[in-house]
Order: sequence, then C-alpha cells, then structure tokens
Amino acid sequence: MSAQATKSEGLAGIIAGQSAVCSVEQGGLYYRGYEIHDLAENATFEEVAYLLLIGDKPSGAELEKFKKQMIEARALPDHAVELVKKVAKAPAVHPMDALRTVVSYLAHFDPDCQDNSKEAELRKSIRLTAQIATIIGHMQNVIDGRDIVKPDPALGHAANLLYMMRGAKPTEEEAHIIDVSLILYAEHDFNASTFTGRVIAGTLSDMHGAVTGAIAALKGPLHGGANEAAMEMIQEVGSVDNVEPFMKNAFATKRKIMGFGHRVYKEGDHRAAILHNLGRAYADKKGKEAVKWFEIGEKVQKIMADEKKIYANVDFPCGMTYFVMGIPVPQYTPIFVASRITGWAAHIIEQHENNKLIRPLSEYTGPSGLKW
Amino acid sequence: MSAQATKSEGLAGIIAGQSAVCSVEQGGLYYRGYEIHDLAENATFEEVAYLLLIGDKPSGAELEKFKKQMIEARALPDHAVELVKKVAKAPAVHPMDALRTVVSYLAHFDPDCQDNSKEAELRKSIRLTAQIATIIGHMQNVIDGRDIVKPDPALGHAANLLYMMRGAKPTEEEAHIIDVSLILYAEHDFNASTFTGRVIAGTLSDMHGAVTGAIAALKGPLHGGANEAAMEMIQEVGSVDNVEPFMKNAFATKRKIMGFGHRVYKEGDHRAAILHNLGRAYADKKGKEAVKWFEIGEKVQKIMADEKKIYANVDFPCGMTYFVMGIPVPQYTPIFVASRITGWAAHIIEQHENNKLIRPLSEYTGPSGLKW
Repeated sequence: MSAQATKSEGLAGIIAGQSAVCSVEQGGLYYRGYEIHDLAENATFEEVAYLLLIGDKPSGAELEKFKKQMIEARALPDHAVELVKKVAKAPAVHPMDALRTVVSYLAHFDPDCQDNSKEAELRKSIRLTAQIATIIGHMQNVIDGRDIVKPDPALGHAANLLYMMRGAKPTEEEAHIIDVSLILYAEHDFNASTFTGRVIAGTLSDMHGAVTGAIAALKGPLHGGANEAAMEMIQEVGSVDNVEPFMKNAFATKRKIMGFGHRVYKEGDHRAAILHNLGRAYADKKGKEAVKWFEIGEKVQKIMADEKKIYANVDFPCGMTYFVMGIPVPQYTPIFVASRITGWAAHIIEQHENNKLIRPLSEYTGPSGLKW
Repeated sequence: MSAQATKSEGLAGIIAGQSAVCSVEQGGLYYRGYEIHDLAENATFEEVAYLLLIGDKPSGAELEKFKKQMIEARALPDHAVELVKKVAKAPAVHPMDALRTVVSYLAHFDPDCQDNSKEAELRKSIRLTAQIATIIGHMQNVIDGRDIVKPDPALGHAANLLYMMRGAKPTEEEAHIIDVSLILYAEHDFNASTFTGRVIAGTLSDMHGAVTGAIAALKGPLHGGANEAAMEMIQEVGSVDNVEPFMKNAFATKRKIMGFGHRVYKEGDHRAAILHNLGRAYADKKGKEAVKWFEIGEKVQKIMADEKKIYANVDFPCGMTYFVMGIPVPQYTPIFVASRITGWAAHIIEQHENNKLIRPLSEYTGPSGLKW
C-alpha cells in the first residue's frame, strides 16, 4: 500500500469510475439525461429498458422490435423450469437465492454466454430481462402449488409479470403501478449490486456471472432487501396506535428502521413520493384494511422526519404498495431484480467497453512477524 | 457527488477498508502474520485454511478436528450430483460457470444458509471448502465420461482433489505440488473476487451469495482466469524457437501477455518462484516433452523482464505446472477456487463482524436536461 493511498471505509465519497448511464444527484435522479418524474409519468418500463440498454429514446419502430424481442425471450427451456420447481421450495431457500441459481444456470444454455462483445451483451440483456420475470412467476406458482403459468405475449412486461405470478390478469391500475415501480427501480448508478456487477465484469468475466453476483448483493437488507424488511417492520407495528411506542422503543434500543436514509440522498429519495402516491391511491380504493398500512407507514415517516431528519427511500413505499396489491413479501426483492437487470446490464456493457480491473487496497490490522 | 470526492478509476490506490486476514506488500505476502515461503515450506493446505478461517495456527487436536469436519463435509447430496451431471457438459458452459451454479444451488440445502452469525459462517466455510473440491472432481468425471469418483476419506484435501478428478491416486510429489499451489492461492487481500465477496456481504447478504459472486469474478482472464490464459498462450507459442518471433509480434500488436504484472506487486510476485521451482523439478523428472513448456515459459519471462521490466505472477508458473501434471486447462481456475474459498470466507466473516455498506460514487459523463 503506497504512502499516497486514500482511505475510505465503504468507499463513501470515492468516485470509482465514469458512467453515462445514470446521474444520482441531491436534486434529482436522471437516466441517461431524463429526469425520473418525467420517465415515471410519460414512459413505459420497456421504453426505459431500451433507453438504459441502447442509450437513447426508441423510435416507434425500434420500440416495437425491442418489445417483440423481449416477448420472444420470455419462455424458459423445460429443464430450467424443472430447476425452478426443485429450488423454489428447497429447505433453506429465499426467492432471491433461487433466482440467483436459475440465472446462473441459464448461462450454460445461452449461445452468447462467453461472448463479451457489445452486440452479444445486448442480446443477453434482453434475454435476461425477459427470463427473470418468468423465473419469478414460475417460482410463485410452485410456492402456491399452482400449475406453471406460461407468459402471455399479449401483455406488456409489468402486466405479464403480475399475471404469471398470480395466474389471473391484473387490472390496468395494478399493471401501471408495477410498471412505474419497475421504472423507478431500474437504475441507480454505482449502488452495491451494480458495483458488484462492474467489479465482476472488470475481470473480463461474463454478463451472466456479473448478474448472478449482482442478485446476491441486491438480496441484502441494506440494499434491495430493504423493501421486504420495511414491510415486515410495518407488519410488526401492526396498528396506527402502536407506531409511537414502537418507534420510541426502536430509538431507545438503536434498532435500525428499514427503508429510511440513503448513502447519497440526504434530503429524501426522489422516487419515494411517486410510488407512495400511486400505492396510497390504490389502497384508498381497496378500503380500510389496505389504507391502514399506509397510515402506519406515514406516521413512521413523520416521526423519522421530525425526530431524526431521515427520510423514506423508495423501498419504504414499495413495501406498502406491493403488500396492498397482495404480492407475497419474499418476492419484493426479486421484482426489484426484474427491473434493475436493465441497469446492471447497461453498466456491464459500459464496463466492458472501456475496461479497467477494479481492485482496491486494504489496510492490514493483524499481527506481524510470526513464524510457523 | 460531493465536491470533496476522490476519483480513482479501478480504485487503484484506494484503501477500501481494514482487514486482519492478509498483508500484501512489495516485500512479501503474509497470511495473518505468517510469510508465504514459511507457510509453503512448513504448513499444509488444511493448516493454512484453519489459519485463515479461525485466525491462528491450530494445535494438533484442533487440526485433527478441523480435518475431520472437512472430510465429513465432502460428499454432495445426490440431487446436487445430478445437477453437476446436467451442467458440466452444457452447450455454453465453462467449468467456472458450472461451479458457480452448483455452489449457488447448494445454498438452498445448507441449514445455515440464512444465518450470518460467525459460528454459522465458520460451519458454512468448512462445508464450502470441502464441497467445492468435490464439485470440481465430479465435473471432470462427467467431462471424461467416467463414473463419479467419490471422495476418499483417507486422503488429504489436495490429494483427494486430484484423486477425484482423475480416478487414480496421485503420487506424493503430485499431491505436494497441488497442496503448495493451494497454499499460494488461498488469500490475497482485496483482490477483485474477494472484494466482490465483501461488497455482496456488505449489504448483509449471505455467504453463499458472496461466494457465488466471487467465483464469477475469479473467472475473468484479468484475475483467476489468467492461469488458463497463460497456458493457452504458451501452447500457442508451441516451441522454444518460436518465443522470440511470438513476443516480437505480441509487442508490435500490443497483445497482452497473460500471467504477467500485478496491480500491487511491481517487482515480482513472491509466490511465482515457489511454484515455478516445484513445477520445474517435476517436469525435469517427467522428461523432455514436459520440460519444453517450462523452457518456453522461462524464455518468455526473460524477455518480459529484460524488455518490459514486468515479472510473472503466480498464474504463469501455475499454468505450466498444472499442464505438465496433465490437469485439463479449463480446471485451473476452478482449482484456484478450491483454495481461495478459504480467503473469501475469512473476508466475508470479517466483513459481517464489522459491517459497512460498500457503495462508491460514479462520475456522470452522459447528456443532461433531456425531456421525454
């Protein structure tokens, strides 16, 4: 380690490289120059996926071709469906782990697996984006003891995902909420899972390997797993009346409140309100029992803002929204993957286009001078 | 991104955290305070594994217990053997990819999978270290069309690995060479695969996920894949007479010479000579055809040193040594995994013991101010 080395635990404040995919700023979140509210209001997930992967807004014809490629790539080979059946209910499994195994497995049958050229990686990106939604749907079918629901080519990505999970077609509002959540979750610069993917890609390893590692990273409750952890906490609070005693106790015992704060955003996460408003409007129509979860969440948010000046990130409203839509909690982070795969793939392609091995130093703190 | 942010492409010169596992210095390589020549000469791989995982040198009784635990953990469940059979010869597979999938799969059946406590992680470390060697052996059996060779509890880790791969017991010298190579490969601070494992573990994800990601990273030719790439290059050179024209051409076309240079070591890799000497002595006994590969390699090394002042790293002699031992080239990096799993596990445990999310920043270089 050199005398000039800079030290930063957790790499806070360290710029690890350049990227043209996304800009995360205190004042806003931008995907390739487009602001996130603009995209959430005016684009679909497929358009955003195209934007992230290809680099600009698609024409009508480009979008149709892209959607067709996605739809054609949805079905899994039979032997991969068999693997889903084997792992989805394995004794020690979380759906994120099962998803990781199946994605890793699909690599062995992808004709472009060992090809790191941009063209091959774009093909793999589209396949992975399509296949991951199908894996999630099939996993839920196995967990629910339902026959495997095959993808429906008449449905868009978000609607088809919900359809495959439930075996029933979602309403337009439900499909829209999922679509927007996928847009919000698609990309976030050098977050831990994307950075994992870039470190793996930086050794000139392949895209499936990088995505497999990224899935492993996203699982953690300090990252993508926060949407599940947040909803589990809200369920534990259980009632609006219990919010104050729960929070008092949490502060006294230094318990971490999940779904709050962000390494980059200090004055709130731009994505949170967009999803909160959609979820709350949906809950209002669903009735009292659904609204209750938002009322609990809102009270938790108010106490966090008033007493700690810490604000909800997108995982907090995501948990509540998916919950009132009846999506099983352990699938929240896999659905996050169904979206973030596009950002990961864009970063892996970018890493390979201008590659440099990512290899930091460590500061040694152990004993020295020992003899065996 | 803050005004005070430090920028470093590839994190060169950035200390990403503290570690008591290993010290990589210009002057030497130390595992928990013990110098690598001392360990290579005086310890076995099992002792080094214990040292890395537990933190100090085992007593006789501690070592016996540890070896017994390793031996008991070697066998894979039948359904995992079936998965090995399915993936080892899949159309687009590299053995590193197959190993990644099987390790990811074994997570779902590990009773400690979701438990990040130190005790649980030590149990998982021992299981993974034992199982990975078995996966490699089984893979090679499938590739060779041989019946699956079950682990032999009478053999040490290195000898058993070679035995399972070949179906025939290795000589003492062969087992010793593999044992030393496993010691040399066991740990190397924040290299790209270990760092991948720490980034994954830093989200509070689990050990199997972190190891799965680390395997993906190690595959790359800029990292563990270099031992395979180096030997492929030496085969391409083919004869001692062809070294000079090959190198002249390589320099002229800026072709990367694999197995040379290191992000940290600038004056040579301390591990390289240890393995080179063992491999060369083995080749000398094997005869002219085996010696040829070392003569080619030595001439390549001399030209690199004379003309570029760049020295071989451990991957270069490793490739030649494994080659003259008749180990199939695509298994060199998996064998690296069979060793490095111990270093990875030690770092994952250390990360979880004093965790901080690893999340750097990026510098945005794309367009801005676009409207959808």
